[in-house]
Amino acid sequence: MKDLKTLTPLTKILKEIQHINSAIALMGWDQETYMPLGAGQARAEQMSFLKGLVHEKQVGKEMSETLAQFVDLETGGLSGDANDWDEPASACLREVWRDYHHATCLPSDFVRKLGLETSLSHQVWIEARKKSDFSLFASNLKRIVALKKEEAEYLGYGDSPYDALMDRFEPGMTIAQVAPLFDALKAKLVPLVEKIQLSSVVPRKEIFQTYFAEKAQIEFGEKVLQAMGYDFSIGRQDLSAHPFTTSFHPTDVRITTRVDEKDLLSSLFSSIHEGGHGLYDQGLSVAHFGTPLGDSISLGIHESQSRMWENSVGRSKPFWKHFYPILQKTFPEQFEALGVEDFYSAINTVGPSLIRVESDEVTYNLHIMLRFEIERAIIEDDFPVEQLPVLWNDKMEAYLGVRPENDAEGVLQDVHWSGGAFGYFPTYTLGNLYAAQFFNQAKKEIPNLLEQISKGSLLPLKSWLNEKIHRWGRQYSSQAMVARVCGEAPDPAYFINYLEEKFGEIYSLT
Amino acid sequence: MKDLKTLTPLTKILKEIQHINSAIALMGWDQETYMPLGAGQARAEQMSFLKGLVHEKQVGKEMSETLAQFVDLETGGLSGDANDWDEPASACLREVWRDYHHATCLPSDFVRKLGLETSLSHQVWIEARKKSDFSLFASNLKRIVALKKEEAEYLGYGDSPYDALMDRFEPGMTIAQVAPLFDALKAKLVPLVEKIQLSSVVPRKEIFQTYFAEKAQIEFGEKVLQAMGYDFSIGRQDLSAHPFTTSFHPTDVRITTRVDEKDLLSSLFSSIHEGGHGLYDQGLSVAHFGTPLGDSISLGIHESQSRMWENSVGRSKPFWKHFYPILQKTFPEQFEALGVEDFYSAINTVGPSLIRVESDEVTYNLHIMLRFEIERAIIEDDFPVEQLPVLWNDKMEAYLGVRPENDAEGVLQDVHWSGGAFGYFPTYTLGNLYAAQFFNQAKKEIPNLLEQISKGSLLPLKSWLNEKIHRWGRQYSSQAMVARVCGEAPDPAYFINYLEEKFGEIYSLT
Repeated sequence: MKDLKTLTPLTKILKEIQHINSAIALMGWDQETYMPLGAGQARAEQMSFLKGLVHEKQVGKEMSETLAQFVDLETGGLSGDANDWDEPASACLREVWRDYHHATCLPSDFVRKLGLETSLSHQVWIEARKKSDFSLFASNLKRIVALKKEEAEYLGYGDSPYDALMDRFEPGMTIAQVAPLFDALKAKLVPLVEKIQLSSVVPRKEIFQTYFAEKAQIEFGEKVLQAMGYDFSIGRQDLSAHPFTTSFHPTDVRITTRVDEKDLLSSLFSSIHEGGHGLYDQGLSVAHFGTPLGDSISLGIHESQSRMWENSVGRSKPFWKHFYPILQKTFPEQFEALGVEDFYSAINTVGPSLIRVESDEVTYNLHIMLRFEIERAIIEDDFPVEQLPVLWNDKMEAYLGVRPENDAEGVLQDVHWSGGAFGYFPTYTLGNLYAAQFFNQAKKEIPNLLEQISKGSLLPLKSWLNEKIHRWGRQYSSQAMVARVCGEAPDPAYFINYLEEKFGEIYSLT
Repeated sequence: MKDLKTLTPLTKILKEIQHINSAIALMGWDQETYMPLGAGQARAEQMSFLKGLVHEKQVGKEMSETLAQFVDLETGGLSGDANDWDEPASACLREVWRDYHHATCLPSDFVRKLGLETSLSHQVWIEARKKSDFSLFASNLKRIVALKKEEAEYLGYGDSPYDALMDRFEPGMTIAQVAPLFDALKAKLVPLVEKIQLSSVVPRKEIFQTYFAEKAQIEFGEKVLQAMGYDFSIGRQDLSAHPFTTSFHPTDVRITTRVDEKDLLSSLFSSIHEGGHGLYDQGLSVAHFGTPLGDSISLGIHESQSRMWENSVGRSKPFWKHFYPILQKTFPEQFEALGVEDFYSAINTVGPSLIRVESDEVTYNLHIMLRFEIERAIIEDDFPVEQLPVLWNDKMEAYLGVRPENDAEGVLQDVHWSGGAFGYFPTYTLGNLYAAQFFNQAKKEIPNLLEQISKGSLLPLKSWLNEKIHRWGRQYSSQAMVARVCGEAPDPAYFINYLEEKFGEIYSLT
């Protein structure tokens, strides 16, 4: 039986590439946290040079010759008898070839053109959003769409070019799989939002818009992170303009948060969200560092971890049964007189809004549906880019009952398209679906999970995730991972049930 | 005339190497400031891999073939007619070849052996120091000394193998040049220390051993740094166990300090000292980044910048005329009742002590003399390593009148030898000599320099250093730089006069 040891010459190269990637990631972290303002230009040059080094190694002679010892470089098929390989080794080769194929199948002229176009478009998008005028951005976007369609052809696909793009973020996921999931979800979400709108219950979310000292907010957040099992001896939390998680190695995983002293929820839930990402990265295998077996599966699975901790745990009743008294002690003036029930409703306020990143657990997914449908229309059906604002606004009205008054609060709000990231948005909602399904399974397998959570004991869940998901790296695809953990395919019913039950109770729906 | 443009293929490689070096430097900075404890092993592996990459590029085919277009790889002689090259280009080639020669002349087996031995010895030294037992470390040190002598043979030298070692830190400097400087200095320092010892003046240095809040200390230090012209838009100050300066580019230079709330002087003077280093690095040429013309000359010249700011400025009367009232406002309880004269004497307290890094401006240099003489004895005269403790203690008694009671406070106190850094120590005192000579010149050239300093106006000195020293990179050697700036060779008289005058007054010596 050939196993991972057989692959030593290959994993050596992979680890070397990962060392450079870790340096790039540190440079990225530093850029967002501590780098002096005036160092931007130099840092960009340094990062770009190192990224070039990584690419050279990914497609270079050493890599292709070494990989060719084990797989057919054209097809990815294992050389010799496929049955000779054990599962970890064959999974590793499958994923290494996947990365190799992606790194080599795009002509370098094309990569350069796309890089130039997206970097220009990003600047134009910033300007257009500032002026709230989509027409300034339309011709850039048109060129990017054309390039992304070209990219899909290089990458190859079965049914739809959109599959090729989505595959970069959620390997193996196709329209044929996603569309039914999303349709089922939308069919339930639109009426749910309508019912919530009609409810006479109005959670008191204004209680979060008073003053909360920065230091106390951070300390409370770190208490929660510690309870989650986020290990500060191999991690940190710093401040940045936009919260993110980055990892240089499973023993060096860093998250960031931002603190608004006039808004308690912003920092708290980003800490929990990024903490969920951080637990995944801290839970990856040290032994397999640098190889696909030491890497995370997909954006969707990564997002399932952050969403589960943020929503299934962090916005749940059991969680606040334990943590609300602590929060009350931290901010006595603000919360002394407020009961935990009111607090719980307030952190779960649902209401249609124009901006995705400010939206709640329920409406968030309708923002994603809209983007997914628009991306399909552009990529599959040649929908004219100039008419996007109207399409956007019509869909907002249909799904959420609100209509943007200008492009800045509509079609221009997200950075993704200016960077060419078509196929990225669906992973947000996939994350929610996976999260609900995983959490449902966790409740079945971990004795008294909710009761444990209500005592502040979050480690059983963390350990379960370590064991069931994190430690496997990319050995299984996201779909295979869901099937392994839950014994069935991804199913939107779990997320729908979760939302209907939770918000049915909060908003007294019948 | 061939100029730097001719060297474009070469500088391209140099900049690439520097990009990787910048990543390594960032990793080093992060390791000392923010890195989680548990990440040490992974970080060491990553840094070691990147250092290997740098070495590969420094000695690789691309480098040797490109460099060979311009110089004879064996001798460093310019190819073709040397007069065809302008000064910056020929200086650049001289220094690039220097680095190339150093990177290539040591057999890789030897480098590996030395690396292994020093890394082991470092561990043994830590143990030996802890147990205060030199005999535990002696055989390691013996092996290192043998290897350093071997290294000197590979590097090549004129008179003394010690020259080859010193040359790594202070290019071009030899025993023949250093010994007379140091002898002249020692001849004056020993009696000066004796006289100070006999003086009835006793500065009140105990005033610094009360409580000084960390935040206020850092803020005051940053005020001084700002006044010095240390640019926080392209720099930072952070905390670390041992203060240091590091640079990733002239637009990203970082210093650190450590704060002891029971000792005001430790953080303040390290901020000023590292600030002096930082100004040098911020003053290097952006256009020549990555090439020797964008690099600092030597450890001695670098140290001259930090020492000038720390001592000639930071421990001077004019400086405190401006800053003492601000310090009094910062720490009213501690300093309200203390006059600036007493404060000035107290920060300039001189007294023999056993530990180099805790010693004062005068005795510091005798600690260096001792090490310099011992290094020569070992490298040149085969002085038996086992007998070092006695030699050390005898010299301490002769120069400073104090005798260590054990090895930890004697021969085992410094890390340098365990890492093989023979020839490093002299650069500390060279820095002091250069500093005094440069500062003397600055007083001649900058109108009313001392008066300006007494008004808190430090920028004229900073600009003068930028113009005279920093912007030239390694175009001139340290000796040539002193000659250019001061119109004469390095001369210890300036430092001697400075010390005799300053401490003669403070200690009322006749």
